[in-house]
Amino acid sequence: EKHCLVILRIVCFLLEKDTRSTSIQAADSTAINGSITPTDKRIGFLGLGLMGSGVVSNLLKMGHVVTVWNRTAEKCDLFIQEGARLGRTPAEVVSMCDITFSCVSDPKAARDLVLGPSGVLQGIRPGKCYIEMSTVDPETITELAQVITSRGGRFLEAPVSGSQQLSNDGMLVIVAAGDRSVYEDCSSCFQAMGKTSFFIGEAGNAARMMLILNMVQGSFMATIAEGLTLAQATGQSQQTFLDILCHGQMASTFVDQKCQNILQGNFKPDYYLKHIQKDLRLAISMGDSVNHPTPMAAAANEVYKRAKALDQSDNDMSAVYRAYIH
Amino acid sequence: EKHCLVILRIVCFLLEKDTRSTSIQAADSTAINGSITPTDKRIGFLGLGLMGSGVVSNLLKMGHVVTVWNRTAEKCDLFIQEGARLGRTPAEVVSMCDITFSCVSDPKAARDLVLGPSGVLQGIRPGKCYIEMSTVDPETITELAQVITSRGGRFLEAPVSGSQQLSNDGMLVIVAAGDRSVYEDCSSCFQAMGKTSFFIGEAGNAARMMLILNMVQGSFMATIAEGLTLAQATGQSQQTFLDILCHGQMASTFVDQKCQNILQGNFKPDYYLKHIQKDLRLAISMGDSVNHPTPMAAAANEVYKRAKALDQSDNDMSAVYRAYIH
Amino acid sequence: EKHCLVILRIVCFLLEKDTRSTSIQAADSTAINGSITPTDKRIGFLGLGLMGSGVVSNLLKMGHVVTVWNRTAEKCDLFIQEGARLGRTPAEVVSMCDITFSCVSDPKAARDLVLGPSGVLQGIRPGKCYIEMSTVDPETITELAQVITSRGGRFLEAPVSGSQQLSNDGMLVIVAAGDRSVYEDCSSCFQAMGKTSFFIGEAGNAARMMLILNMVQGSFMATIAEGLTLAQATGQSQQTFLDILCHGQMASTFVDQKCQNILQGNFKPDYYLKHIQKDLRLAISMGDSVNHPTPMAAAANEVYKRAKALDQSDNDMSAVYRAYIH
Amino acid sequence: EKHCLVILRIVCFLLEKDTRSTSIQAADSTAINGSITPTDKRIGFLGLGLMGSGVVSNLLKMGHVVTVWNRTAEKCDLFIQEGARLGRTPAEVVSMCDITFSCVSDPKAARDLVLGPSGVLQGIRPGKCYIEMSTVDPETITELAQVITSRGGRFLEAPVSGSQQLSNDGMLVIVAAGDRSVYEDCSSCFQAMGKTSFFIGEAGNAARMMLILNMVQGSFMATIAEGLTLAQATGQSQQTFLDILCHGQMASTFVDQKCQNILQGNFKPDYYLKHIQKDLRLAISMGDSVNHPTPMAAAANEVYKRAKALDQSDNDMSAVYRAYIH
Repeated sequence: EKHCLVILRIVCFLLEKDTRSTSIQAADSTAINGSITPTDKRIGFLGLGLMGSGVVSNLLKMGHVVTVWNRTAEKCDLFIQEGARLGRTPAEVVSMCDITFSCVSDPKAARDLVLGPSGVLQGIRPGKCYIEMSTVDPETITELAQVITSRGGRFLEAPVSGSQQLSNDGMLVIVAAGDRSVYEDCSSCFQAMGKTSFFIGEAGNAARMMLILNMVQGSFMATIAEGLTLAQATGQSQQTFLDILCHGQMASTFVDQKCQNILQGNFKPDYYLKHIQKDLRLAISMGDSVNHPTPMAAAANEVYKRAKALDQSDNDMSAVYRAYIH
Repeated sequence: EKHCLVILRIVCFLLEKDTRSTSIQAADSTAINGSITPTDKRIGFLGLGLMGSGVVSNLLKMGHVVTVWNRTAEKCDLFIQEGARLGRTPAEVVSMCDITFSCVSDPKAARDLVLGPSGVLQGIRPGKCYIEMSTVDPETITELAQVITSRGGRFLEAPVSGSQQLSNDGMLVIVAAGDRSVYEDCSSCFQAMGKTSFFIGEAGNAARMMLILNMVQGSFMATIAEGLTLAQATGQSQQTFLDILCHGQMASTFVDQKCQNILQGNFKPDYYLKHIQKDLRLAISMGDSVNHPTPMAAAANEVYKRAKALDQSDNDMSAVYRAYIH
Repeated sequence: EKHCLVILRIVCFLLEKDTRSTSIQAADSTAINGSITPTDKRIGFLGLGLMGSGVVSNLLKMGHVVTVWNRTAEKCDLFIQEGARLGRTPAEVVSMCDITFSCVSDPKAARDLVLGPSGVLQGIRPGKCYIEMSTVDPETITELAQVITSRGGRFLEAPVSGSQQLSNDGMLVIVAAGDRSVYEDCSSCFQAMGKTSFFIGEAGNAARMMLILNMVQGSFMATIAEGLTLAQATGQSQQTFLDILCHGQMASTFVDQKCQNILQGNFKPDYYLKHIQKDLRLAISMGDSVNHPTPMAAAANEVYKRAKALDQSDNDMSAVYRAYIH
Repeated sequence: EKHCLVILRIVCFLLEKDTRSTSIQAADSTAINGSITPTDKRIGFLGLGLMGSGVVSNLLKMGHVVTVWNRTAEKCDLFIQEGARLGRTPAEVVSMCDITFSCVSDPKAARDLVLGPSGVLQGIRPGKCYIEMSTVDPETITELAQVITSRGGRFLEAPVSGSQQLSNDGMLVIVAAGDRSVYEDCSSCFQAMGKTSFFIGEAGNAARMMLILNMVQGSFMATIAEGLTLAQATGQSQQTFLDILCHGQMASTFVDQKCQNILQGNFKPDYYLKHIQKDLRLAISMGDSVNHPTPMAAAANEVYKRAKALDQSDNDMSAVYRAYIH
């Protein structure tokens, strides 16, 4: 079966090669030949959560020089053992590095990291690069871009589509926007962490795109949970439901993994339920700002709120399943 | 690229072989070696719509003896040229054949076909097999099973998950329930029309399962349309949105095809919008009967109703997109 | 305060007199002078539930000759003590009476009562009047009207807007449609049971109108529950919320009574939760048949389904409150 | 009819007297005897929109000394003719007055008014009272309370439930919270503008309460529009629907006025559609912050967003009707 997976990956890669446009960087060369040439720029990384941990691991593995910082410092230890350096504050990391990435949980955390005491802004000097990887709203990105560039810094946003697993595997999909030269300078980093990366114009665009992607993912997850629970409620086998689903046109890694986990009662966070709910909220609000109705996302958001009330915030998004059975 | 697809198909087949349980018939042997041994039973087929046409074509291609009937008789001509015989009424088809399939649009049509004048029931004799392929509610299946068996007939329901394209390609996923011996007698038919078939117990189960699958599909379709339109409303490229989506975990044939069609403004019906709305309605109503909330399906249903009011009933389900831009 | 209520009632009556069109029968003369002249026709009544009981009581009080039947016969005893006669079957009641009313729980019950063994239809003879008071879908009304009139019977539908309390008080609002002469023959009955009655054309119209009214009521009830629970969740006094609500433009008997009951934890059925959910379902389905989106009703329906899953079916509709706190 | 209305108002007043708790100020004495004793404090008023205009008018009528300011200065002229003084900036108004009210459109406007250049904060000195009447989110209130009191000012929030009509009639319902002594100092002002006022504790509570009330009102309005349009779509008379509705338990000033206006095609703003949508959004977001699902409000919000996309923002909230017919 493992052999098949390798063939499958190659086939997928070839297929993509043919059909995808040139604006996409085939970042996943690592998946094929296992090596990239790391940039000699000093890399900083702020935030070692579900996504950040995998990213830093892959940066180190591919030979990057990385300085890390995390709100709770203990999480840094593991990476220091793997060769990372320790920064005592966000400001210090930025001062020590050429390019600093951050990956935190929500708009408030992203803003505090930059604007707070000993924050990123204290370390920004002309030429320094700052890359915001957190999924936040476009207004936050615009604000951060402004304060960074007003100090002479260079700003890129680069939120990722994926999960802890994909982050660990270096298979994230990266959507970047802002200063194109930063995007190019980071080339080896994005290759280390991701399967593919996209550059889509001015700062704010990646936030918009990522919120919409996560809105679709969050709504789909709720829909799958609704299907699985309705199967059970009507006396059908959930496993058979999943089998049929995975034989049809809708078959995808996402459906397969989330359903398997649900059936095994495994809600270990791959992407926090509270974060997908935040993304839904921000996407709905973005729709609000352009008078675009989003009834599916609105319905999904309410289901996730119920799941949060059932104490599922820190479980995987698939724990929305529990909102349907309680 | 074509070569890759062949490899991919083999890989998928091998992967499935390993991981799927024995209750599933690997109906897609045709995909590999291109031949099956057709049953020598005389096959009847009632209803030559989007799905029925492809099925009959494949039955004939694989050497079955098929008698067809359709409400508007002209549609039969093409199949007669391909070797089918013509039945003048549903009753006559059933009389002439050992096993009769029907594939019509909704519960009312399915019921009328059986119970109406010159209907199926008039032709049922002990031993005759009747296979209902239409996606209807479980109550209708139970009722049809009862009347057919009360005349000595043998009943199987076998709704399919798929589209016109998959039907033409003989790649449908078949979910069957009812009389297992009928399921086995039809083996070569299911191989001719489908990629895989499942047998899941007593009559009504397949209807339940199929309604849930279509509910998930209908809700997902609406979610995708919501994402695509929100992308546009916020100034993002829909093509890029699709590219990113298709590089991530949610990538699937369904997402790819539906989005491509939408971006090309191609709403030629592969599965009628009015039919997916009917399926959503029936699934919601099934949830109602077991007091199971289905807020995602309820939201989706309202979006499809808006699309119907915009005259999209006879377009493909992807035309739900238009409910978001008008 | 009681004195004030009398003034208020007079004021309301005067106000209505002035502003309402002539198609409305001021049925509530009883509220003013306490007496009406009962018809000398023999009245039958099938179904002594929450609504039926109050109606029969008032019919008897105003001097009508009434024969009653109920599925569980014990419920008849009380009315027999008040002067009613007992019919052994629906057919017998119809045979014994000139005008027979029925008031049961849902379309299936209404249909069974007419078409079942010893049903209404067995007793229908030319000239017999049959009045369907149950809130059902228009299709059921059309079907019943057809079978009754095909036997020479005269058909009227007369669903009511109200509650057990209003039924007991003879303050229902009656919406009638069908055979106008039946409506006129029943004049004294409607005066006995109702505050006002409307005649709105051909059979089916009253069902449509009543479903829409109940849809609005059901959605409003869910909205009120949502407000009360959000008040609590955000640390506000529910009593103060109610006080403010009742001082504003939205103040109504409905808001006041339902909120008071909720705050007292009193969910004794005035109108069954399962019945308002059924009404929502039928209204949504009616919207479906004309491609009219009803997103508010769809959302409300899901909340009621959750309440049903929490075992609130036989409580008052206000128990939808519990869907928000569990 | 006019006579009846007077009786009705008295009756209502008497009824309220009996049943309401002591924490409510019977502000509507003016409705009975037409006079109050105005405070001799100098009153400032910022914002002469739909609500502010009526309030200022009534403050002047009842003998208050009022200084006004509005973003577009022309709107002040009318009030200057009625005896108001003109302030050139918010800061100047606050400097010139003891108690300053503000009534603007949304959280951003409220914040800018206080914190912006020549804003309220510039004029705040120890002892100055500032009363925020705008309906905003509790976070904004908390923030404003903090900055005002940090300068020695005294803060009260006093959002109102009502409409332009009620504002003109001095019949608003006022919900106040914050500094109780300010509430008492304003007694004559609240009597001039309102029917009743409530004091409900610490700053933020009134915002919470008002958002919930408006959420209920906004959802109910959407529900009514849904009912009216479904009536039409199913061939029923909208006028008859309204007549029946107004004879039942749900009858209220709100239902009556909104429906009459809709039937007359009159969407002149009494409360802006864009403002009720903003209130829904803020209420949903408040629910979000306490993990409380608000599916009805979420559905309503989407309908209002559709109405906004149809260019109904500056019409009355009842124009949500148009979202159902386009």
